[in-house]
Formats: sequence, C-alpha cells, structure tokens
Amino acid sequence: MAATPSVPRSTRNRPRTPARSWWGWGYTDAHPDDAECAALGALIPGTLARPLPIPRIADLPIAPPAVTPPRSLAHLVTADPRARAAHAMGKAYRDVIRALRARPGRIPDLVAHPTGDREVADLLDWAGTHDVAVIPYGGGSSVVGGVEYRGDAHRAVLSLDLTSMDRVLEIDTASRSAHIQAGALGPVLEEQLRPHALTLRHFPQSFEFSTLGGWLATRAGGHYATGRTHIDDFVQSLRVITPAGAGTSWRLPASGAGPSPDRLFLGSEGALGVITEAWMRLQERPPYKASASVAFTDFHHALEAVRALAQSDLAPANCRLLDPGEALLSGASRDGSSVLVLGFESATGPVGDRLASALDLARAHGGRAETPPADCDPSAGTVDRAPSAGPADRASSVGPADRAPSAGSAVSAWRSAFLRMPYLRDGLARMGAVVETFETAATWDKIPALIDAVRTEVGAAALKITGHPATINCRLTHVYPDGAAPYFTVAVAGRPGAEVEVWDDIKAVAVEVLHRHRATITHHHAVGRDHRTGYDLQRPEPFALALRAAKEALDPHRILNPGVLLD
Amino acid sequence: MAATPSVPRSTRNRPRTPARSWWGWGYTDAHPDDAECAALGALIPGTLARPLPIPRIADLPIAPPAVTPPRSLAHLVTADPRARAAHAMGKAYRDVIRALRARPGRIPDLVAHPTGDREVADLLDWAGTHDVAVIPYGGGSSVVGGVEYRGDAHRAVLSLDLTSMDRVLEIDTASRSAHIQAGALGPVLEEQLRPHALTLRHFPQSFEFSTLGGWLATRAGGHYATGRTHIDDFVQSLRVITPAGAGTSWRLPASGAGPSPDRLFLGSEGALGVITEAWMRLQERPPYKASASVAFTDFHHALEAVRALAQSDLAPANCRLLDPGEALLSGASRDGSSVLVLGFESATGPVGDRLASALDLARAHGGRAETPPADCDPSAGTVDRAPSAGPADRASSVGPADRAPSAGSAVSAWRSAFLRMPYLRDGLARMGAVVETFETAATWDKIPALIDAVRTEVGAAALKITGHPATINCRLTHVYPDGAAPYFTVAVAGRPGAEVEVWDDIKAVAVEVLHRHRATITHHHAVGRDHRTGYDLQRPEPFALALRAAKEALDPHRILNPGVLLD
Repeated sequence: MAATPSVPRSTRNRPRTPARSWWGWGYTDAHPDDAECAALGALIPGTLARPLPIPRIADLPIAPPAVTPPRSLAHLVTADPRARAAHAMGKAYRDVIRALRARPGRIPDLVAHPTGDREVADLLDWAGTHDVAVIPYGGGSSVVGGVEYRGDAHRAVLSLDLTSMDRVLEIDTASRSAHIQAGALGPVLEEQLRPHALTLRHFPQSFEFSTLGGWLATRAGGHYATGRTHIDDFVQSLRVITPAGAGTSWRLPASGAGPSPDRLFLGSEGALGVITEAWMRLQERPPYKASASVAFTDFHHALEAVRALAQSDLAPANCRLLDPGEALLSGASRDGSSVLVLGFESATGPVGDRLASALDLARAHGGRAETPPADCDPSAGTVDRAPSAGPADRASSVGPADRAPSAGSAVSAWRSAFLRMPYLRDGLARMGAVVETFETAATWDKIPALIDAVRTEVGAAALKITGHPATINCRLTHVYPDGAAPYFTVAVAGRPGAEVEVWDDIKAVAVEVLHRHRATITHHHAVGRDHRTGYDLQRPEPFALALRAAKEALDPHRILNPGVLLD
Repeated sequence: MAATPSVPRSTRNRPRTPARSWWGWGYTDAHPDDAECAALGALIPGTLARPLPIPRIADLPIAPPAVTPPRSLAHLVTADPRARAAHAMGKAYRDVIRALRARPGRIPDLVAHPTGDREVADLLDWAGTHDVAVIPYGGGSSVVGGVEYRGDAHRAVLSLDLTSMDRVLEIDTASRSAHIQAGALGPVLEEQLRPHALTLRHFPQSFEFSTLGGWLATRAGGHYATGRTHIDDFVQSLRVITPAGAGTSWRLPASGAGPSPDRLFLGSEGALGVITEAWMRLQERPPYKASASVAFTDFHHALEAVRALAQSDLAPANCRLLDPGEALLSGASRDGSSVLVLGFESATGPVGDRLASALDLARAHGGRAETPPADCDPSAGTVDRAPSAGPADRASSVGPADRAPSAGSAVSAWRSAFLRMPYLRDGLARMGAVVETFETAATWDKIPALIDAVRTEVGAAALKITGHPATINCRLTHVYPDGAAPYFTVAVAGRPGAEVEVWDDIKAVAVEVLHRHRATITHHHAVGRDHRTGYDLQRPEPFALALRAAKEALDPHRILNPGVLLD
C-alpha cells in the first residue's frame, strides 16, 4: 500500500496547443467565422446585419504598469500587453461583449507566473506592502466576474496566473488519490493520471480552460449529475497560502475534528488565500457504460421522472433534462419534446440493469425511452479518449446503445452541442445578441414554480428591455434527492452599444426571481463580482460576520481578489 | 409538491421512559448488577475484588449557584442538584470513573431548558453580560469532555439543555426533508418521522441518548459504513443563534455560493453558536435488506477485502470489520478469525445481487462467507422496528439471511454487543478497570501500519503504566474509497484511585501514535476538551487564524463552551 513518489511528467514537451483567444472562449481556430456568425444571428430577430469585428489589443486602453516588481520577483512577472489583456477579465458574456466593444474591465498592471509556493508567498508579501491587489487566476474561464479588478482602491493590480504550477506531484494508488498542483488545467491533469489508470473525472463544460485550483476555489460542478457532483467531495487535503501564512490540511478520508478546514477555503474564490496544491480523490476509469435518452411530451411529467430517479439509488452519472427549447437547440429533439439524457457508468460491473430500471421509472412517468439498455463491452476497447477532449471524454466512450441511430443521436447531439455552445455564444455576441446563462438550485417543492417564473418573468423583462422576444431555455444539469439545479439560457437581440446594460437589467430581474423563490444565486459558477447582490441577500448573517473576520485575519492588507464575496 | 406545515406531535404524552443514569451510560435499569460487574472484572487481570459502589449525588461537592437568573428567565432555569450533577460531564470513561470516585468536573451552577429561539437568545444575552459560561447540552453523551466546564475563568456556568426543543416542525415530502428542532433525541425524532414513512436513518451508538443538535455540532458518524457516513451530508439548512445574532441558511440541495455557511457550524461544538433547528435530508425506509458475515484468517487480507469493497460501487450500508479480539468480545467468532459484517439495504429494489458481488469480492481476498445472500421480502413484513430501538432498528430488520444459524448469529451477536458495550464499560469501571475507546481515520496507504502501531505501542504503554497486560481490539467502523476509520478499544486494570491519570497517560501515547501516522484525532467523536492536544497539532494554521477570528466575532464575551476547539 505504499505511495508512489513524484510522478515524472512524461509530456513536459507536449505539442503546442492551438492559440487561446484573449477575448473570447477557447481556441481561436474554433471560433465561428463571419459567415457562421451571420447565420447564427439570423436565428435571433433584431440582431445586427453583420458581425462586430474581432477586437484588437492595440485598441485597448493599456497604460504602463503603475508598479515595478522587485528584482527578486522580476523574472516571474510580465507587463506584456497581450498577457495583460488576456488576464483582464473572465469569459462571461459580459466580458466578451466588453472586449468586442473595447470597454474591458481594468487591465491588470502585471501578470505573474509563479512556479512554486515560495514564489506565491513572496508575491503576496510584496503586494501586501505595495498596495497591489492580487487576482488569483487559473484558466480564466470565470463567468461571474471572478478574475477581474473593479474600482481604484489599490495602487496597482497583479494577475496571479498559477498555470505554471501544473504537475501531479505524487500518486497513492492504494488510496486512489493524487497530490496535484492547483494550476493544472483539466487536460494537463488527466494526462498525468492516465498512466496510472486513474482519473479525477471532473469534467465541467470549461474542462479544457479551467484549473484544479479554479474548480476548488469556486466549488465547481463536474461530471456527475447525481451524488457527488461538486469538486468539494473529492478533496482530501488542501494547501493554502495566505498573506498571514501558509498551511496544509492533513490527507484524511474523513474527519470529525472541528469544522472542516478545507470547506472554508472551498468556494473562497481567492479572497482568503491562494490554493496551490490539493490531494484529490481519484477513481478507476469506468469501462462499463450505458446511456439512453427519454422523450417526454410534458415537461412537468419529466420533472417528476427526474425526481423519482434522483430519489432512487440508481445513481446515474448523467441525468440531464432538456426542455423543448434546449432539446431543439442541441438537436436532441425536433418535435417539441423534452429530452432526458441518461448515462450510467461503473468500474465494477455492468450497468445495463441500472439503466433498464431507470428507463422503467421514466416510462412510468410518461417517458418514451428511445434506446434499449446495453452495456459497454470493456473487451471491445471502448475506453476513454485522450483527456484533452474534456467532456467529449464521455462522448467517445459510448457503448453499443449510443450507436443505435435514434437515441444515440440525441445523446451525441447533446454532447456535441454542450462543448460547442460557448463558441456559438461568442458568435452571437458578435452579432449584437445578448446570450448568457445562469444556474441555480432549489428543493423539489420549489422547482416547478421556479422554472415557470423564470421563463415568464425573465422573458417579459427581456421583451420590455429590448423590444424583442427572448428565447429562454432550461435544462437540469444536476439533480439531488432533495432538489435540482436548473440552468437557464437567455438569448435576445441587444441594443447596439448597450449590450452590457441590457444584460445587467435582465439579470437583475432573474436575481429577484431567484431570491423570491429562495433559489441559490449560483449552483456551480461561483459568486465573483456579478452575483454579489444575490449572494449578500442569501448569506446568513452569522456566517457573514465569521467570513469578514476570517478575511481580516488572513488578508489584513485586503489585497486578495478585492470585491469578491466581501467588500 | 407542496410542503406539509407543522406536524402535530401525536405522542406529546408518551409513556415515561426508564430513568436515565446521572453518572453512567443510558438507563439505570440496564446497568449490570454487582454480580455481573464482578464477572466482567474477572476477565481483566488485576481489577478489584468487588465493584465500587454506585455514586450518590449527596456525596458530590455541589455549592450554591454563584448567580441568579433574572426573573424573566427564572422559569427556564433550575438549580436542582440532581439536574446539575447530571449536566456536569459527558459519558466518557473519564467521566464515569470521576463520578465513581466522587471527583466530578465542575458542577454547573444552573441548568436551563429553553423552549424556543427567543429564550436561547435571551439566555445568551444574560450570560454575556454576567460572565456566565454557557455549555450547550443535547443528550449529554459526549465522550471527549465536550459538555463540561474546566477552569475558573467565568463567574458561573450554565448548562444549556436543548431537549425541550424536540419537535419536527414541518415535513416536505416532495423534497424528502424535514425541519427539526435541534434538541430532539434520536428516538423522539424518528417517532415523528415514522407516520410519513420517512427516516433520517442516523443511528450512532448513542442514538437513544444524543440529539440532532449534538450530532450536527460534533459531525457525528452514523448508520452508513460507506458513502455518506457523517451527519454533515444530510444537512440542508441550519439555524444558529450566536451572541452576535441569529441566522438561518437557505434550504438548498446544493450551492456554489461562497464557502458553505453550514460547514463552519457543523463541528463547531457549541463554541461559535447554538444550533437550534435544521432542515435535514430524509430517506424512505428501506424494505429491501440483506446481510452476511465473512470470516478471515488473516486480518491484513481482510483489510484488503474491505478496501476493495470500499473502492467498488457496491455501497454496503454496513461494512464493519472486527479484528479477532473484537469478534471474540462480541461473540461474532470464537476461533481467532476476523469477521466482516456486511449489510445492504435499499428502498428501490432487491439488494441480493450487491451482497453476492460483495461476497465474491471478499472470497477473492481469502474470506469465508458464512451466509448465502438473500433479500428481505418486503411483503413478509420485515420492516423497521420502533425508532426508540435506535441501532437495534437494524438488528430487528434482518432478512432471511440473518435468520440462518451461522452467519445470522455472528451479525446479530455483533449488533447486540454494539448496543450493550457502553453499559459493560461502566460495569468494568466499577471494577477499577480502565476501559475506553478512541477512533481515527487515515488513508489506506497508512492503515495497516497505523493499526499495528496502535496495538504495539499503546499496548506496551498500558503495560508499563499499569503493570498489567492490556487488551487492545480494533474494528473498522466506516470505510471510504481513500481510507478507513479504525476504532480501538483498550481494557486494562487501573491503579485504584488513579484511573483517570492512568487513562490520560495511555491516551497521550495513543495521541502521539495517531499524530505520527497523520491519522485524525477523531473520526466522529469530536474534539471537546480531551482531544485538544491532537486537534491543535493537526489543524492548519490559516484555519486556526480564521476560526479564532470567527469566534471573536460571534462570541465576543467568550461565553460559549470555553476551552472547546479554542482557548
């Protein structure tokens, strides 16, 4: 049961990945071209006739840095305009349209790439004594204003990019866990686990463009639609560096020794400290898989089916319910049905029986199961694809069921659309559309009325604000025995030049509806700066007092991600 | 999907339960008599010839209360000596022997029984302005010095007994959850859920004598041996009253909005606030059950079998491994075998296949399964017993498998012994024996060496300290994919009159061994005052800073459970 020390990074010199976009989602070569943008825009009445041009860094208001790092840290820090521009904001719609309109958030003065804990601590020490705000930065995929600076309370802003700390340091195969540096992007991390036949199996939509540290700091939701859906549950130990000192929690499978130290830093969004390493719980890669889709004529019957599934012990890995609009958009259905995408997986044994039981349950609630259950045959070599594929990891590891023409296509269609969606959003943004998502969670007793209210009230607000009809779609991304996480997509033509204000006005209505229904301001996208209003309303006052006190104690100079979670 | 408001307590006038012991475990009529004590003592060389007498309250040093409550709170407060004596300590071996030797902890001046949040807040306000320490008290079953006062830094001590706040206030059947007052003892709580065919299914060994609030404040471990074993995972929302104000977290199935507010108060052991209510996740009662036992000649092979089970997705509800000494003590085996007690349960469908797969796995590691798998037939009426039975809830709900003569007897023997054990401990204490348990958790890579080290080093220390050979047994109570929770029992003759010192010396060695192996100071018994040394050593410094700051903010007069978690 011995641990394996220090895993060599066999692929340190891995081939260059395609160029990342500084202003939009993902890789530049995956962006829709002008013609595709125009075709997308035509789907939304009132959008522009031709796409906004790709923004240029030369057009941005990039001033010389207001501070100079000390000689001892200079090699870690850059003032390169492209690096600064790329670290100015996350990747929310708000961020993309601000880049397109050349109205970005405040550009950081400097970008640092520390390679170890000592350097992180030294950078924090320097920042604390020089009134420099520090914005911890992983993959930069925040969609809530989590990685930008607002205001002018600090002399300068440093973006602390952790992606140079991206190694799997140690693997303990007996305990199926790994010691991983927080700056590892999803594919970089999985690539290092693969030789050990282990996986973290955390596949958010941003998998390729987000880091372990980002997932931990934002309590990201991942692969599993039921059970352990948040990254929180896979944490064994954290190393955190704060301006007041560093510390590492013990590697423990469980403990009852006081309040969980890790849970205070999970979700702290860089405001209490910088997570630099974690021991994470891993799993064997699951060779047994089965999936199917189920169509429902009535969305509310589908909700009941999903609730029954969530309250069973069948534990589907995927259990995503698409409303008719989502199903249409993703190509999972064209007849106005809602579609439930179901997937089961196991490293232990066949899962066909569980899928069959789930389909029986769905049929009992009026569902039309479109695929007979079938297990993946592990001997047939249907193993996971290269981890760089991210969520497509799942798409490629389908069993025979998924190759059946009917439901297989619905499942695959949803998976492809899931990965492509953020790129299409940016294409629509170039057409002047306002396209954004928000997610929440609530107990089952509130879910039907909540979804109806969001559709009705946010739709009415969007029409009133823009003068154009809005598309509002909903899917359930994660489900629990006691509730579900609805994920909404809003698309409507913006007012040229005022797209940010249009979205902010629409979102304010959404926040009000969520609050009235006591639905959380975020299920897995974090609070950042964009969700502060809703967060402040829902945070219990004793916890607010404790959090403020913890912030004072750990970050006495208030340099860490100012404005996130707390003022 | 509407919620059901305010559930009437049909059994407000339920029959009187047997008298609780003020000095020992549980009910006085379940205590072993003098003859049984003598028979028990004969098993441990060097113990007394006849039992210490049952202690008398009249012999305790009970001074008049140092404070008088204001007229507005007087009706909630008693200075009755019996109530004060019964609230002076928890139920650790240390507490029992201190009572037997008439050397109890400091007796609280007053005991309060608030009936609602307003009264709790008023009592805290009064205590804060009169230098009165407040010890929140549920069932009083702490085995870590969690409910006593030490030192003399406060003018007076108030034990805040919450058991008058014991109602299930509301049930939401759609979301399978209930709003429950924190002072409800296990049976009181389950009794109110029963008419709704729902259960919290949290059955610690102390089930009859501990409250929901106590479980939450100490992060208790409960029914399930795998998966969601701690009460933490069943919390939807908490209401907490602190000296700085009260607050309630929203009822949410999951959230990514900042660090979890509830997780700061779970495990806070009354040092940050008083938990008065919680919304808890419930389950349907599981009619499908199956259990079996597996014998192993080699304990280390058994460990490997349990690890394989924990890393499968079979999810046994019970998966307790008894070493030869534990198996002998509980009557589960007499031939020097280790015994694995396995149980599966489901509300969804038969579990025989899962048990069969588990037994295959155990056999592959050298186990001898003593029962063929068989499912409980729900139509045969093998339903759960009255909740007042606590853990016996499980003992009585056995399927046909458990009625088989061989393994059934091992499983039942273990279950009976599990419930009876604390009473026998007190009988042995009366014979001058030192008998105590401690539990921990560690990752699998550390487990074999940890267990060996505890046996060897704690055994050697006990022999050196007492001059008598010690019995040291071990069982695994909870297992995880990445580790396990070993639970140790130590029994050895004490030095008459110095039993507390003997145990403290032995425990100090245990704490050192746990620390050296980076095994947590407690898996599910909390820190209290007895585990402070180990806790302080393992708590990461940034979290210590944050926790101290939170304590200052929420409890500025430092009246809440002083000495627990923090100085």
